[in-house]
Amino acid sequence: MPTPLITLTTDYGLTDPYVGILKSRIVQRAPAIPLIDLSHAIRPFHPEDAGYWLFCCHSQFPAGTVHVAVVDPGVGSERRILVMRAGGQLFVAPDNGLLGLIAQSVAGAVSFHVDAAALHSLGLSAESATFHGRDLFGPLGAELAMGRAIPEQLGRSHAPILGNLHPPSVLPDGSLLGAIARVDHFGNLLTTVAARDMGARQSVRLAPGAAPLPRVRTYAQAPAGQCVALINSAAMLEIAARQASAADALSATVGQAVYVSER
Amino acid sequence: MPTPLITLTTDYGLTDPYVGILKSRIVQRAPAIPLIDLSHAIRPFHPEDAGYWLFCCHSQFPAGTVHVAVVDPGVGSERRILVMRAGGQLFVAPDNGLLGLIAQSVAGAVSFHVDAAALHSLGLSAESATFHGRDLFGPLGAELAMGRAIPEQLGRSHAPILGNLHPPSVLPDGSLLGAIARVDHFGNLLTTVAARDMGARQSVRLAPGAAPLPRVRTYAQAPAGQCVALINSAAMLEIAARQASAADALSATVGQAVYVSER
Amino acid sequence: MPTPLITLTTDYGLTDPYVGILKSRIVQRAPAIPLIDLSHAIRPFHPEDAGYWLFCCHSQFPAGTVHVAVVDPGVGSERRILVMRAGGQLFVAPDNGLLGLIAQSVAGAVSFHVDAAALHSLGLSAESATFHGRDLFGPLGAELAMGRAIPEQLGRSHAPILGNLHPPSVLPDGSLLGAIARVDHFGNLLTTVAARDMGARQSVRLAPGAAPLPRVRTYAQAPAGQCVALINSAAMLEIAARQASAADALSATVGQAVYVSER
Repeated sequence: MPTPLITLTTDYGLTDPYVGILKSRIVQRAPAIPLIDLSHAIRPFHPEDAGYWLFCCHSQFPAGTVHVAVVDPGVGSERRILVMRAGGQLFVAPDNGLLGLIAQSVAGAVSFHVDAAALHSLGLSAESATFHGRDLFGPLGAELAMGRAIPEQLGRSHAPILGNLHPPSVLPDGSLLGAIARVDHFGNLLTTVAARDMGARQSVRLAPGAAPLPRVRTYAQAPAGQCVALINSAAMLEIAARQASAADALSATVGQAVYVSER
Repeated sequence: MPTPLITLTTDYGLTDPYVGILKSRIVQRAPAIPLIDLSHAIRPFHPEDAGYWLFCCHSQFPAGTVHVAVVDPGVGSERRILVMRAGGQLFVAPDNGLLGLIAQSVAGAVSFHVDAAALHSLGLSAESATFHGRDLFGPLGAELAMGRAIPEQLGRSHAPILGNLHPPSVLPDGSLLGAIARVDHFGNLLTTVAARDMGARQSVRLAPGAAPLPRVRTYAQAPAGQCVALINSAAMLEIAARQASAADALSATVGQAVYVSER
Repeated sequence: MPTPLITLTTDYGLTDPYVGILKSRIVQRAPAIPLIDLSHAIRPFHPEDAGYWLFCCHSQFPAGTVHVAVVDPGVGSERRILVMRAGGQLFVAPDNGLLGLIAQSVAGAVSFHVDAAALHSLGLSAESATFHGRDLFGPLGAELAMGRAIPEQLGRSHAPILGNLHPPSVLPDGSLLGAIARVDHFGNLLTTVAARDMGARQSVRLAPGAAPLPRVRTYAQAPAGQCVALINSAAMLEIAARQASAADALSATVGQAVYVSER
């Protein structure tokens, strides 16, 4: 039975026709399956950005969705192709850290390195040395979506490379140390801290000694001009400002620490 | 009978996966209906920008099209959900001024506040406090498109909040006072003045005492380097420059007055 | 038999709803055919940019694909509408140089000026003076895709206007003189030189006396911080830098010469 959806996440941008070429190859192998763009504005050479978005939003897609993610600075080198089954969905990406956060965070995630024999049996080959999204990742996603490829039959089980995004760690005093993972289009700061990790820890700081950020439930509750912490629609801790950019207001950037403690 | 199309207009941008998540929810409820993006680059917190585009282009879509528009700075607050029937089409948006221009301009427009019981009966709820496009507006648009929701049955008839975009007013001397509503990608200045409002008034000025802008029928007729007035493809008054940005040439911005008189 | 795909290439941008309006008109005439966006970020008034991308990527699309390209500064003037059959595919565009490179490069390309009688018989007319993508090019592409229009029956055969992009020329010393045609999203410099033009000429320079650029097969082989030449996924000569922008590193721009010689 074909899967209901294929999503696409790349660093190709929308200025050039690369996304259109990728879609052409997918549509030819999976003509009836809707393609949904997640983002083509991933920072080039930052696969972990794509992985963060997939971690946050994969549960919003129907069971069996195939997520194709290509941020691939090592294209043409020896990096491997990874297929992962996690949270009832399938993921196809280069094994360069992109899927590391999902592997660490989603219970029961299993991963496979796709081997040459499997590619060959699907009629796939690296036609070019520079565009494996078109040649391999996209068509492989289409074959998975059509049910003609099964992750467990594509190669050996293999733990993915983890990259530089991780679930928050617990400090000796019991507080959580997370990080700002993305700044979104509105200037909201999205963190690596999931609501389910927080428990009784509800005080959010960007520096250990600072006053905690006010907690709100909605953007509209934030006092004008003040930055606040809230649980966002992906059930992740987020720092925002009312009708303004928290990133600008706090001069905050990706990678910066976030502290979450009981008081 | 399902409607032929659903359009989407938001301030979500295309950098983040928010549009993709919205589409996932719509596709799950309305799998066979094409989704067409109008714009996801509405200025954040400016719902009237979305309303202007919908006013200009809704007649280009087939009868029964459902337009979902989400520019929603008040998400999670008490702002209402509006469903409007106008010009043979359906519109779903927050009641924050977004649909005010259409309500004032399209004869026979009728609007309804969607009540909690109607949402509940459609299986819709505010799962999050921050992403009602995903939770409510998108799925409601899908239900309208599939014919499983009828505007008149969703809640009480209610005049929409009007916002800050209005049809042009008639000055004491009989001339029209309109405004620049949008600057498009080419630098063209799009106004609130419809061709049908103009009648014998064909002289267009950006300041009361200025010389009127030359009138042309096509961009190609404009003398190089000169700004001109024309009726555009949406039958609206537009100010343009040949192969250049009228906004730059005139240092013109959204909100600036436009005067249209007989001489 | 309907064609499998329609592609779209314009300078409309994604900020305004113009692409959505174009799609509405196409979907109404060709409801079952997938639409694939190639680029809507063509530089306004530069039709040759669109033609370059179509030249590079048309072979990635299935036989019979219809490519609709609208970069049309002469809209409303006497410029003609061109339909071309080349490489097993169909192209619809204004006759303003956009399709010149394909006409010069693809063996067996044939072109036709669409005449008024043909438009009339398809129910097409210039409803507006400013948006012929919506009124003519898009719907004509849909009719071609549905098999209800045949290029040879739309008007007289006519060689297209060539524009300012050409295949490389051979200099007296036997070397090739090409040009940088596009700078892509990654800062890669895409040239007019096809791999098949090069033969034994494998030394690539941006200035006649300079040292040749190192040749690599993949981006990952480039020494860090060094610009290299490679054959890209479209089988075209490209100049790139490893995980960096070659355009920035070389201060290179569109139109600059590229020299390819045996040593």
